[in-house]
Amino acid sequence: MNAHTPTVTVGELPASRKVHKPGQLHPYLRVPMREISVHPSAGEPPVTVYDPSGPYTDASVKTEIERGLPRLRETWIEARGDVERHEGRTIKPEDNGFVSADRLTPEFPVRNKPMRAVDGRAVTQLAYARAGIITPEMEFVAIRENLGREQLRSKIHRDGESFGAAIPDFVTPEFVRDEVARGRAIIPANINHPESEPMIIGRNFLVKINANIGNSAVTSSMAEEVEKTVWAIRWGADTVMDLSTGRNIHNIREWIVRNSPVPIGTVPLYQALEKVGGIAEDLSWEVYRDTLIEQAEQGVDYFTIHAGVRLPYIPLTIDRVTGIVSRGGSIMAKWCLHHHRESFLYEHFEEICDICRAYDVSFSLGDGLRPGSIADANDAVQFAELETLGELTKIAWARDCQVMIEGPGHVPMHKIKENMDKQLAVCGEAPFYTLGPLTTDIAPGYDHITSGIGAAMIGWFGTAMLCYVTPKEHLGLPDRDDVKTGVITYRIAAHAADLAKGHPAAKVRDDALSRARFEFRWEDQFNLSLDPETARAFHDKTLPKEAHKVAHFCSMCGPKFCSMRISHDIRDAAREAGTQKEGFAAMAAKYRDGGDLYMPVDSIAESSTKP
Amino acid sequence: MNAHTPTVTVGELPASRKVHKPGQLHPYLRVPMREISVHPSAGEPPVTVYDPSGPYTDASVKTEIERGLPRLRETWIEARGDVERHEGRTIKPEDNGFVSADRLTPEFPVRNKPMRAVDGRAVTQLAYARAGIITPEMEFVAIRENLGREQLRSKIHRDGESFGAAIPDFVTPEFVRDEVARGRAIIPANINHPESEPMIIGRNFLVKINANIGNSAVTSSMAEEVEKTVWAIRWGADTVMDLSTGRNIHNIREWIVRNSPVPIGTVPLYQALEKVGGIAEDLSWEVYRDTLIEQAEQGVDYFTIHAGVRLPYIPLTIDRVTGIVSRGGSIMAKWCLHHHRESFLYEHFEEICDICRAYDVSFSLGDGLRPGSIADANDAVQFAELETLGELTKIAWARDCQVMIEGPGHVPMHKIKENMDKQLAVCGEAPFYTLGPLTTDIAPGYDHITSGIGAAMIGWFGTAMLCYVTPKEHLGLPDRDDVKTGVITYRIAAHAADLAKGHPAAKVRDDALSRARFEFRWEDQFNLSLDPETARAFHDKTLPKEAHKVAHFCSMCGPKFCSMRISHDIRDAAREAGTQKEGFAAMAAKYRDGGDLYMPVDSIAESSTKP
Repeated sequence: MNAHTPTVTVGELPASRKVHKPGQLHPYLRVPMREISVHPSAGEPPVTVYDPSGPYTDASVKTEIERGLPRLRETWIEARGDVERHEGRTIKPEDNGFVSADRLTPEFPVRNKPMRAVDGRAVTQLAYARAGIITPEMEFVAIRENLGREQLRSKIHRDGESFGAAIPDFVTPEFVRDEVARGRAIIPANINHPESEPMIIGRNFLVKINANIGNSAVTSSMAEEVEKTVWAIRWGADTVMDLSTGRNIHNIREWIVRNSPVPIGTVPLYQALEKVGGIAEDLSWEVYRDTLIEQAEQGVDYFTIHAGVRLPYIPLTIDRVTGIVSRGGSIMAKWCLHHHRESFLYEHFEEICDICRAYDVSFSLGDGLRPGSIADANDAVQFAELETLGELTKIAWARDCQVMIEGPGHVPMHKIKENMDKQLAVCGEAPFYTLGPLTTDIAPGYDHITSGIGAAMIGWFGTAMLCYVTPKEHLGLPDRDDVKTGVITYRIAAHAADLAKGHPAAKVRDDALSRARFEFRWEDQFNLSLDPETARAFHDKTLPKEAHKVAHFCSMCGPKFCSMRISHDIRDAAREAGTQKEGFAAMAAKYRDGGDLYMPVDSIAESSTKP
Repeated sequence: MNAHTPTVTVGELPASRKVHKPGQLHPYLRVPMREISVHPSAGEPPVTVYDPSGPYTDASVKTEIERGLPRLRETWIEARGDVERHEGRTIKPEDNGFVSADRLTPEFPVRNKPMRAVDGRAVTQLAYARAGIITPEMEFVAIRENLGREQLRSKIHRDGESFGAAIPDFVTPEFVRDEVARGRAIIPANINHPESEPMIIGRNFLVKINANIGNSAVTSSMAEEVEKTVWAIRWGADTVMDLSTGRNIHNIREWIVRNSPVPIGTVPLYQALEKVGGIAEDLSWEVYRDTLIEQAEQGVDYFTIHAGVRLPYIPLTIDRVTGIVSRGGSIMAKWCLHHHRESFLYEHFEEICDICRAYDVSFSLGDGLRPGSIADANDAVQFAELETLGELTKIAWARDCQVMIEGPGHVPMHKIKENMDKQLAVCGEAPFYTLGPLTTDIAPGYDHITSGIGAAMIGWFGTAMLCYVTPKEHLGLPDRDDVKTGVITYRIAAHAADLAKGHPAAKVRDDALSRARFEFRWEDQFNLSLDPETARAFHDKTLPKEAHKVAHFCSMCGPKFCSMRISHDIRDAAREAGTQKEGFAAMAAKYRDGGDLYMPVDSIAESSTKP
């Protein structure tokens, strides 16, 4: 037993309150958002921000990890009348890597019979969308994406370059349905993960980020992984991928899924490899298929599947500086070469689709041949695989499966846009989901930054979801601090992308924070930031006293050199000369006319010499 | 007395050796570079990297802070026969902010009489360049920029998008002279700072970074600031700006300049304001002029001068969310409004040029009206000021003064390029020197990252030097750790920009590090990185044993899932089937022809199952 009931980080963020908006088509919906209040002196409404953190930040909810989250979507799913409960697959020793009894992570205490589609039906959001049905999930994400934008509708000022995206001023449920139906967006929502709060991934919506967690053979336990999940979404991860590779993989995943309000992604190949003792050559379609069903029944929302790593492409990696750097890609390459056969993932892709459509598991078509260094970026083998991913996208779509496409990797800035342009062209505008890209190889220890640069850019160009990279990339497994740093860095990249795309109202938070900054509302500046704890700690390190939080200057420049303070003095002076704008206008006019002094100045001198 | 002799961080970086290359035109030159050696198993030569860290990282030199660095350029300057030594300005109590004797930072122990031009001559690198003279400084930077590139000449593969820059394959002294003569590059090199190792700032050279240091009235002492300087250049700062504003400002600066091998920049207005007791309205041309001469005689290499903050522009700031956020800009705005007069910096600009040309102090024309928030980016007042900076550039050039132009600030990604394009057009291709820009306002505590994104992009577009931003921006004064984080982040941005511009040989270091990564040469990977200490510490946190540094896997994936290990297995197998390339090619051909199994596979299984 390596586990006890895990404790996770709960509680609201500073000055924040969880609010829920109702639906109209589906009035029972309670769409969560976070409202950050500002000081009354500002005379401003709270700022509403997107909130993937789930009930853990809701003061009115007491979460219990050993019971799991409320099964929010269960009635929605059952109401559609196209699923059945069944006994499901029996858990086998290999599912947990043949772990010995004394080291077994305990099973999750509650077991629900899994659901699956009846009669080979497709129970995917794509199938419903194509049938013209606006599901509760679709209305949920429409409301979620708007962030109360209807209140701002009159103020929406579009300013950005979206490179051909079609971002509406206001997201309607019908717009969501249409984007899903076109394959331009996905709502990863396995029917066996009813605890999830629906979210959408697509170029015409807010840019999302994914955080990877997962134990390895070397380190980490179930309790740590559950806490990492809750911790990652607390700081803004929109989905979480469980990349565990060690023993106990089945049981740990169950704890994670039952307690996750965000979609969970996996790479099923990792577990399949554990089942065959780590010998790539011993993998088979049967073992893999069994793993897909196992994970689909648990509720995994999207599968990374490296079905584009085809045998003929492998020799093309020979001239690369870093060969094949995707774990899944290298495993499949080894299997293909050993057996001298085409990939079983590629050959059985239609059967994989048939499994996914029965649970609504979305595809995340993996880029197993992505470049692992600047030298290998945008090479022939990378783009050959992308063509295959495009081909597979069409097959999946033909079976009503939702699809997104994974992208690189390591790419210098001038080669980033080509990745986005080719992906859009080749994959029929299916959402792009990229790792970074890292814009240089020379900074291990700082790859959240080398990749944050590339992520912001490719997000701007159209990537729908950015997979985070932590400071430990290339060096070790991320701990809790690394997870937070990775998430915050990628929230920055995603938000910078939303701003540059001209996403309506993206600028609301920037403007609110900047006003707080200009008005010396320190507490508001901290509370509106992505990481209030760090902002406050940094401020307090130099000026710890409470009095300084109302000071009209800070430690950086001191009172005499505070540009913002002086700006206020200037405005005050102008205000005395009439209303502010008129005062300034008059001043400027007089100046241009060669007029004389035009305002009382004693007050300025007074205020600046007596800080 | 708040000071004792400061101790600074010295010693070589891991696996590194300081080397010096001689000149040809000036054979006595010893141009410093850093060679990073790799493990003999790699069979590769050392990697040569740019090295601004000065004698502090030279094992053969014993530095003594109280004596200052060797006066490297003194004989070069004297040999030109156009300068004279004189007594210089007498230090006055106000130079150190009227500090009381018991708190006075001691004077630097060695005093050299300052030099100045004779007979109103221009002793600037621009004047020499225009006269067709290739100075030792010019040859020095030519050699420095090449980084031993002549050895690589046959391997140079240009790949990038430089947006109209004219980066040569190989930098000749004549190319340097020509770029300086055109005003497209500057070599900040005050004749009274002969300790400096020449460096160049221009779009057709490697992108440079600046680190800001400086005490404030609230915190920090001389010893800390000298160490911050040495620390900043150790990690790669190309220039250092001393933004001190407190007392002891003159004496602290003297310690810094005497011990700095990189150019030192200042904002003379800060000291001028101290001299008038912090009352902006009491500033005068006379006080300011006196401060310029004081600092020029000390050896400051470039002055930020906010001469573009003109009275008529000030009312244009009224609608801004964050008003005026430049310290210098706000001080001048207040002065202008108080006196209802045009800026004395603008009105006396020609006299300022006459001072600068007598010492070769370069201009860094300050953007006092830069945007301080996303909302204010690229607004009318920002670009109005830029026009004025263009006008001032021409005036400075007419007097043989070297000029660069400061840029924003806070700018969303889609508005960054417009800044670069306008600057090039309006300022006649004078080098651009930007702060960030920050691509969102919502992440105080992480503004090295919000701005690192913008810095990489604007560097790619053509900015010649990037002014770093530390995590403490907006919140407090950076400490030693913050300085390092800021410098490393900006080295990443600058290098990513060099790569994307297609700078010849920029990729050499990336490739060497990636090969080390692929070949599990962990020590080489650490040593070739921008921050070997952090890379090693992160690795050791998960896998501390020495044995793991030769392990052919790491803690991230463990041996079974190591893609790079598997890639090697694949290559080894191919190698057995002939030479590597032929083997793979044959395999691929056989596969396409429907051939049978083509290689012995037992060896692969063996190696992967017995890690």
